[in-house]
Amino acid sequence: MTVLDDMLRLGKQAKEASRRLALVSAADKNVALLAMADALEAASTELKEANALDLGVGRQLGLSSAMLDRLELNDTRIAGMAAGLREVAALPDPVGRILDRRTRPNGLRIEKISSPIGVVVIIYESRPNVTADAASLCLKSGNACILRGGKEALNSNRLIARLMVEAAVKQVPGFPVDAIQVVPTADREAIPALLSLTQYVDLCMPRGGEGLIRAVTECSKVPVIKHYKGVCHVFVDRDADLEMAGRIVLNAKCQRPSTCNAMETLLVDRSIAGRFLASIVPQLQVHGVAVRADDESLRLLGQGSGLQLRAATEADYSTEYNDFVMNLKVVAGVEEAVIHISTHGSAHSDSIVTRNEATARQFMASVDSAAVYWNASTRFTDGGEFGMGAEIGISTDKIGARGPMGLEELTTYKWLVFGNGQIRS
Amino acid sequence: MTVLDDMLRLGKQAKEASRRLALVSAADKNVALLAMADALEAASTELKEANALDLGVGRQLGLSSAMLDRLELNDTRIAGMAAGLREVAALPDPVGRILDRRTRPNGLRIEKISSPIGVVVIIYESRPNVTADAASLCLKSGNACILRGGKEALNSNRLIARLMVEAAVKQVPGFPVDAIQVVPTADREAIPALLSLTQYVDLCMPRGGEGLIRAVTECSKVPVIKHYKGVCHVFVDRDADLEMAGRIVLNAKCQRPSTCNAMETLLVDRSIAGRFLASIVPQLQVHGVAVRADDESLRLLGQGSGLQLRAATEADYSTEYNDFVMNLKVVAGVEEAVIHISTHGSAHSDSIVTRNEATARQFMASVDSAAVYWNASTRFTDGGEFGMGAEIGISTDKIGARGPMGLEELTTYKWLVFGNGQIRS
Repeated sequence: MTVLDDMLRLGKQAKEASRRLALVSAADKNVALLAMADALEAASTELKEANALDLGVGRQLGLSSAMLDRLELNDTRIAGMAAGLREVAALPDPVGRILDRRTRPNGLRIEKISSPIGVVVIIYESRPNVTADAASLCLKSGNACILRGGKEALNSNRLIARLMVEAAVKQVPGFPVDAIQVVPTADREAIPALLSLTQYVDLCMPRGGEGLIRAVTECSKVPVIKHYKGVCHVFVDRDADLEMAGRIVLNAKCQRPSTCNAMETLLVDRSIAGRFLASIVPQLQVHGVAVRADDESLRLLGQGSGLQLRAATEADYSTEYNDFVMNLKVVAGVEEAVIHISTHGSAHSDSIVTRNEATARQFMASVDSAAVYWNASTRFTDGGEFGMGAEIGISTDKIGARGPMGLEELTTYKWLVFGNGQIRS
Repeated sequence: MTVLDDMLRLGKQAKEASRRLALVSAADKNVALLAMADALEAASTELKEANALDLGVGRQLGLSSAMLDRLELNDTRIAGMAAGLREVAALPDPVGRILDRRTRPNGLRIEKISSPIGVVVIIYESRPNVTADAASLCLKSGNACILRGGKEALNSNRLIARLMVEAAVKQVPGFPVDAIQVVPTADREAIPALLSLTQYVDLCMPRGGEGLIRAVTECSKVPVIKHYKGVCHVFVDRDADLEMAGRIVLNAKCQRPSTCNAMETLLVDRSIAGRFLASIVPQLQVHGVAVRADDESLRLLGQGSGLQLRAATEADYSTEYNDFVMNLKVVAGVEEAVIHISTHGSAHSDSIVTRNEATARQFMASVDSAAVYWNASTRFTDGGEFGMGAEIGISTDKIGARGPMGLEELTTYKWLVFGNGQIRS
């Protein structure tokens, strides 16, 4: 058996499972999810044993203690996985929503309804709890999934998937055993092989660092939904409430700088730049933020001001720091801000602070990002904060889901046409 | 200048045009479309001259008379293009529709609104009227377009685009001149070069034969929405009104067999197969339909019946004939019908004829096609028949638009978030 043969078998099984999953009722999907939660908790000893094997491999591979910590399953984390499954069971069913309906003059009744995507491949890094999390969201949305976690988590991931499927099959007759599959090999060739199967795989969602995501996107023949990075901006307009602007900037940069929705670049309108920068930059530096500034900001802030500043390079403006580092630039107004964002941004989350509605509307219409804010922190781009109840990822793509992805974003749609014998003339 | 340099310039210009197009009002887009219609009619002499050059090239290339006919622009066709533009102007604006809205406990107001995709590349074959048609739908949906027609239509296509842009710029100040661009070279390398520009191009829609579409999909690094072919099915269930089933089958196969939504395979439930086939097959043959049948149908229809039948091969079941040819197969019931469709179909349009609602619901839930019919002909899968007012293509993909694509399907969405100073805690 070659890796491609293995992946063909996985893909074919998943396709068949997705066909059968489309017939499992919403109630039965929830019964399955609750049974899975119980099963994971009941098997905590077995899970910790499998995980101990992975931790051993991880130590041999020389993983850092931070990586080993992410890999570890303990009772708290197992309870967390189970709680996550119960939360997903409680969410509304995303399949079968009527998105549009129309009756044509010939009497045909046409409904556009949400439906499962089919077979979804999810590629992620080490944390094994993602296995339960991703599988539950796929199941709830009627999709069969093929999961590929980190090679160091293979024993944990396989057992989690097996326990989940066994619990579902016991409670729900006809539940397809291949609804949740873990790629059974750590072979690197498995990913391009799996992502060549356009006849079986409908979507791939890679989660992880930019390198992993670029490699997946580069090799994939199936559609990929992803975000590479979050280079988010706050633009403080000439008509901003500067006190509000200060609060938003501090929050967007400092509240949790490691996230993709944290601000990386602050853009300030020239006409209020002197006043605003004199106030905000010292506050940012109190939080330990290193500032990389354009020439104009450097001049405004002055030499010998005691501030730790250095000149920004062109590359800095496209960098996701994920840290207490940021860029600063003075612009002539909203149009220059939009052009800067369109040139250097990552189409993730960008905010304008202004009291001027016309300026805000112009910014919101012309910034081509997944989420565009007016007078709020970029940190809110998140499935939970958007009220989705669960999040499987964030997309900066424009075909398919955009922004935070919850259950609805794991569906596509189809057209159902109800007739009474209509033929076309 | 290499071809890649040329395409980089086109892509960059289109991206900039799309940013400016997002700020053109719905009213101004319609003013532009009406001015374009007038301009095409006013320039009919010039258009016919440019087209005569193309026809000359086409004759030198040895194009068939059918191909030359498709290439030709005459007064009727020019009036048709202008009428098409005026129809698009009259349609509702697809941008800015509020698809969802929610207010969060912290007071953030979140709107999911339809927005332009950005830069759309359309690749098509010889008919120059597609240039006006595709450009108008892209403009109305706020997208900049890059058009690549057949090499034999280059003079016609370039002039149509130039006339359209000039008319728009005259009437709408600030209309971006690069909103509609025609690839200025017939170089085959232009397509892979253009479709490598993920930083500028958001979507590619190829229209044409399966070979063209596969070649485009294979080389593209940007998302492609397409349909390869239409292998559509009608399944006549045991509980069908056989008189209705007969009418639907004849219509789906014979009314216009060259279309992608025509039936290629008839599936019949075993328990009514003898009766139904004895009636429908002679009727199909009166219409000149050649039937390729499975062993069971051949037995049922009998030797020496005078019918022109031959055994179907496995490959026949996946073939789009686009002609008075079809496959015929007896199945055990709805589940076998669904499995056949999922194995051999093209996820385009499939229909069940039955009076049994439970059977119909099972078919509609488990057939994973863009359009699934109950008691109607598959021939209705069409933007006009679905009430979209215009159609730019049909998609059998599941990420992005699915089924007939009108103006709404040329949009994506973004999230607008309205705050009054919210920060995340």
